[in-house]
Amino acid sequence: RLMNYGKEKIGIYRTYATPLENVRTIPESSFDGRDNTLLGLDVRIRLEGDKFFKNFKEADNTDLVATDTMKNFVQYQLGEYDGATVEGFLDFTGREFLDQYPQIEAIQLSADQIPFDELDVPTDDGDFEPSELVFRVSQNESGFGEVYLTRGDDGPQIEEQNSGITDLQLVKVKGSSFTDYVQDEHTTLPEREDRTLYISMDIFWNYEDPEDCLGEEPQRYVAPEQVRDIAHVMFDEVYSQSIQDLIYQVGLRVLERFPQLESVNFEANNQTWIAVREEIDGDEDVRVLREPARPTGYQQFSMDRDDLEEQ
Amino acid sequence: RLMNYGKEKIGIYRTYATPLENVRTIPESSFDGRDNTLLGLDVRIRLEGDKFFKNFKEADNTDLVATDTMKNFVQYQLGEYDGATVEGFLDFTGREFLDQYPQIEAIQLSADQIPFDELDVPTDDGDFEPSELVFRVSQNESGFGEVYLTRGDDGPQIEEQNSGITDLQLVKVKGSSFTDYVQDEHTTLPEREDRTLYISMDIFWNYEDPEDCLGEEPQRYVAPEQVRDIAHVMFDEVYSQSIQDLIYQVGLRVLERFPQLESVNFEANNQTWIAVREEIDGDEDVRVLREPARPTGYQQFSMDRDDLEEQ
Amino acid sequence: RLMNYGKEKIGIYRTYATPLENVRTIPESSFDGRDNTLLGLDVRIRLEGDKFFKNFKEADNTDLVATDTMKNFVQYQLGEYDGATVEGFLDFTGREFLDQYPQIEAIQLSADQIPFDELDVPTDDGDFEPSELVFRVSQNESGFGEVYLTRGDDGPQIEEQNSGITDLQLVKVKGSSFTDYVQDEHTTLPEREDRTLYISMDIFWNYEDPEDCLGEEPQRYVAPEQVRDIAHVMFDEVYSQSIQDLIYQVGLRVLERFPQLESVNFEANNQTWIAVREEIDGDEDVRVLREPARPTGYQQFSMDRDDLEEQ
Amino acid sequence: RLMNYGKEKIGIYRTYATPLENVRTIPESSFDGRDNTLLGLDVRIRLEGDKFFKNFKEADNTDLVATDTMKNFVQYQLGEYDGATVEGFLDFTGREFLDQYPQIEAIQLSADQIPFDELDVPTDDGDFEPSELVFRVSQNESGFGEVYLTRGDDGPQIEEQNSGITDLQLVKVKGSSFTDYVQDEHTTLPEREDRTLYISMDIFWNYEDPEDCLGEEPQRYVAPEQVRDIAHVMFDEVYSQSIQDLIYQVGLRVLERFPQLESVNFEANNQTWIAVREEIDGDEDVRVLREPARPTGYQQFSMDRDDLEEQ
Repeated sequence: RLMNYGKEKIGIYRTYATPLENVRTIPESSFDGRDNTLLGLDVRIRLEGDKFFKNFKEADNTDLVATDTMKNFVQYQLGEYDGATVEGFLDFTGREFLDQYPQIEAIQLSADQIPFDELDVPTDDGDFEPSELVFRVSQNESGFGEVYLTRGDDGPQIEEQNSGITDLQLVKVKGSSFTDYVQDEHTTLPEREDRTLYISMDIFWNYEDPEDCLGEEPQRYVAPEQVRDIAHVMFDEVYSQSIQDLIYQVGLRVLERFPQLESVNFEANNQTWIAVREEIDGDEDVRVLREPARPTGYQQFSMDRDDLEEQ
Repeated sequence: RLMNYGKEKIGIYRTYATPLENVRTIPESSFDGRDNTLLGLDVRIRLEGDKFFKNFKEADNTDLVATDTMKNFVQYQLGEYDGATVEGFLDFTGREFLDQYPQIEAIQLSADQIPFDELDVPTDDGDFEPSELVFRVSQNESGFGEVYLTRGDDGPQIEEQNSGITDLQLVKVKGSSFTDYVQDEHTTLPEREDRTLYISMDIFWNYEDPEDCLGEEPQRYVAPEQVRDIAHVMFDEVYSQSIQDLIYQVGLRVLERFPQLESVNFEANNQTWIAVREEIDGDEDVRVLREPARPTGYQQFSMDRDDLEEQ
Repeated sequence: RLMNYGKEKIGIYRTYATPLENVRTIPESSFDGRDNTLLGLDVRIRLEGDKFFKNFKEADNTDLVATDTMKNFVQYQLGEYDGATVEGFLDFTGREFLDQYPQIEAIQLSADQIPFDELDVPTDDGDFEPSELVFRVSQNESGFGEVYLTRGDDGPQIEEQNSGITDLQLVKVKGSSFTDYVQDEHTTLPEREDRTLYISMDIFWNYEDPEDCLGEEPQRYVAPEQVRDIAHVMFDEVYSQSIQDLIYQVGLRVLERFPQLESVNFEANNQTWIAVREEIDGDEDVRVLREPARPTGYQQFSMDRDDLEEQ
Repeated sequence: RLMNYGKEKIGIYRTYATPLENVRTIPESSFDGRDNTLLGLDVRIRLEGDKFFKNFKEADNTDLVATDTMKNFVQYQLGEYDGATVEGFLDFTGREFLDQYPQIEAIQLSADQIPFDELDVPTDDGDFEPSELVFRVSQNESGFGEVYLTRGDDGPQIEEQNSGITDLQLVKVKGSSFTDYVQDEHTTLPEREDRTLYISMDIFWNYEDPEDCLGEEPQRYVAPEQVRDIAHVMFDEVYSQSIQDLIYQVGLRVLERFPQLESVNFEANNQTWIAVREEIDGDEDVRVLREPARPTGYQQFSMDRDDLEEQ
């Protein structure tokens, strides 16, 4: 049966965490690491175990770890963790949970990384460089990690792992079409040879060897910033004929750059504005657009190495 | 592979839909039907089919039904449907989709019902009765329905079905305890013999015969309002020793009242306030409480008829 | 200069607060009091005083009351207050602030009341009556209060007062028109002899004698529930030709029923859906509607006793 | 009396608007203009005029401009405007409104600028430069503009003007204290010699000559990006002893850099996290922190040139 419980929306922050260094760079991205002066996480924990059934059936709270205690536990471990990645912290904390509480059979931990942007301040010689002290708490796209740990014969093991970058919000001013779709009596959307395309996108990836997600070997780690930058570059490069077309091109590039990945998954949303004036002053690129009724079209799609090899 | 696409957040409304009548009543609830003068739905559609793969791989939009067209299609069908339930409308619309577009292999439709409250207005003789014209658009708990239709040998069939009531927000002033849970060096939550318990809860149910969800035989239909009322009554009746304990009691009662159900599922969240003053004026029931840091503890739990029989 | 500081979003709750009783009833409403088994408030505090200027200019925190202390102070006073109204609590707390901290010259306190709905449970004889223990935490319309206290010659005095009911969300199925407005080259909205009108509305009122807002004389108190019910009734009664027209009729009725009020103020928003199918099955009242792009039209309007006398 | 109506949340976008160029630079910021390849606005309009009273009192819609028409009108004008600033567009549109509809006596227009971030893509020689086509739709801080136009003897005139940057979200890792405030029986907040300070802030400014807000003379225009950068730099530079202290220093610098401004106004919110572990591994700068119950302390403060001269 479905039976688990836990704690979500645990917002925790660490100052001067271990920097992420020695990441292998790719052509699409200048990212090669991050200082982690501030490391912020919004954590969700889920515990599983047959011993929790008596909490439900017999109102017997023995073996029940209060969710408030889970929160304290996670906060404590963020001070203990000496690595540099979201997935590494979740794995570390999951193992501590399994060690502390024998009644837990399996534990899932996931987290959205709370992004902090560097902010330029002037140097003595009139240039600008990032402040070492002040950061923007960004509301934009953020890294994501998830691990699912079970008790194996040799101790805790990562049974499943998921990594991602979520809430990319991207507009391409021109260079996207949408034509040749089904036309019937319910179709009112006009075909467009060129549209200003606005998509939001979540991208997730799985490693062939789950341990690679931890970042202990930084050369085998895939940073969310790198996948984000691939999405930027492909959106810029490709003349897309649909969101599906764009997704496929992004997926191929991600799998090409990172052979350590087994698969890549997408959830995209179409937020494209609606043109209300076009060819302003005779220039076909100049438009006025408005918001749609509600952003609503979506796609879910997974790809793996077979897709790459078929190319 | 995961591959689907669709449209979500389609807000649609119908005036003077068919009333829901002849619902079998239960002791916990005075609900026996609803007028459906206003029927509001927030719909999500998901299409599946191998023919959609070329949209991704070859940028070939043939066979692609634009999500804007899906929206138009759903709007149209709400005018055609002559039944009285959310699930019935989704099933009806799904069959129309499969009929119209042969490239669809399977379709999932789900909807949150947008609740409209009746509002009392005075009658000529000084009493009050519900207005026939004016309704509150409620932000509170709402019904939920979902069907997953595939093409069977004899035409479209409901392969999966889910019904629910979501976002119950309930406080019990006194009569809840939480004690005897694990105590260790990470535990700071004080045990409480009596607490003011605040939970939010989603409850879902599945029928043994999925067709019963459609409401065509109202005596076999389970109305979200009835499950909601069972939750109210059990919360009122039971001296709960944890949220888990409460969930179990609600589940047993739902399965007892509705033998046509196979299972019932819960997702609960603990939003309990924190006491800052107690025993005011010497009365142990009088308290001042504040909000917690963020509402965060949760439980997921499923029950079926075996749980009922074991009692 | 504008200079103040304070605390907002202080969510506080009291169990078994003093009931509100002996409210004078009006024909539009069955409301005559409330038990206040649960009294919930979302409070905002604003302090003013020249002594706070040195906090800004000289980084001198002497005389600065930490906003965290304000929160504690408000929580404490909710245990001390023995009245039954939002405005009464704010006034009581404001006076305590002025008493405790001489550096405060003026204080504004406002609060949204967090509404708790009664929920029916069965009685032994098969009827239903409200549970004494379990309540819905409602997300719907809520009462509002605000007082602004200054130091007068005879001690603290209410210099300004505002009461209200906010976030009414009301639909009228039929019986509203919108025609005869300006037509020009920018007008695309079709005139409608009959539309399904959806408005959200905030209503505020001011007493001629501010002390009447406290509820110490319940017969002179105007309960938010009563003004809400007047809005319901007028929306039901009036064939409105615009939201402006409806607002005016509601305002007249409020001023007529409550001669102790000086003025009534409105902020309304137009959320009216857009018809996509009409005259379904030949019945002009049966429609399918969709949501507008974003709910956006608004009106702000104030009325006083002169408006009533002109009728 | 208060009487106005209008339209809010009008989301409009223009591709290839006129670039903002020749902005006078300041030492705190590298900002010297923006391309305006995408110009996005969330607009609010408010109309005033005695002729609108009959809409309320007499249900007479003559002279009523439908708010839907206002939306169309604003969309149209974004295609006509050939300037580069939010305030310039609002002023331009306001004058067109007054010209088109004689029944309008005064009009207020305000807008939040929807920020689009440049995104780096690789160049042929292995460097990175901003894409000309793809942009992030940012959820972070944004520019704000507001004008209030009345009919003067010589035609429309700006009677009031307000410009701003809203929703700055800034953390300073160390270098902020909060001590020496009032201690009494309600005080529980511990004094802190060094805290990780998290503030959100809106900053607004008014020009001595309102026409300077339009950007027609770019050297006299104050760009929101510049004020934002001053806030970053001052937060980095100043060892603040309270948020009030920090605000004051930011305000002085803004007034110093921009002599064309009359005043600067602040609304700040304290979102500071709460330390749960400190001096990790013996390093006093290394902490684990959690979120507060709800972000709630706030300050409102205005400053003008007198404050600068007193220094």
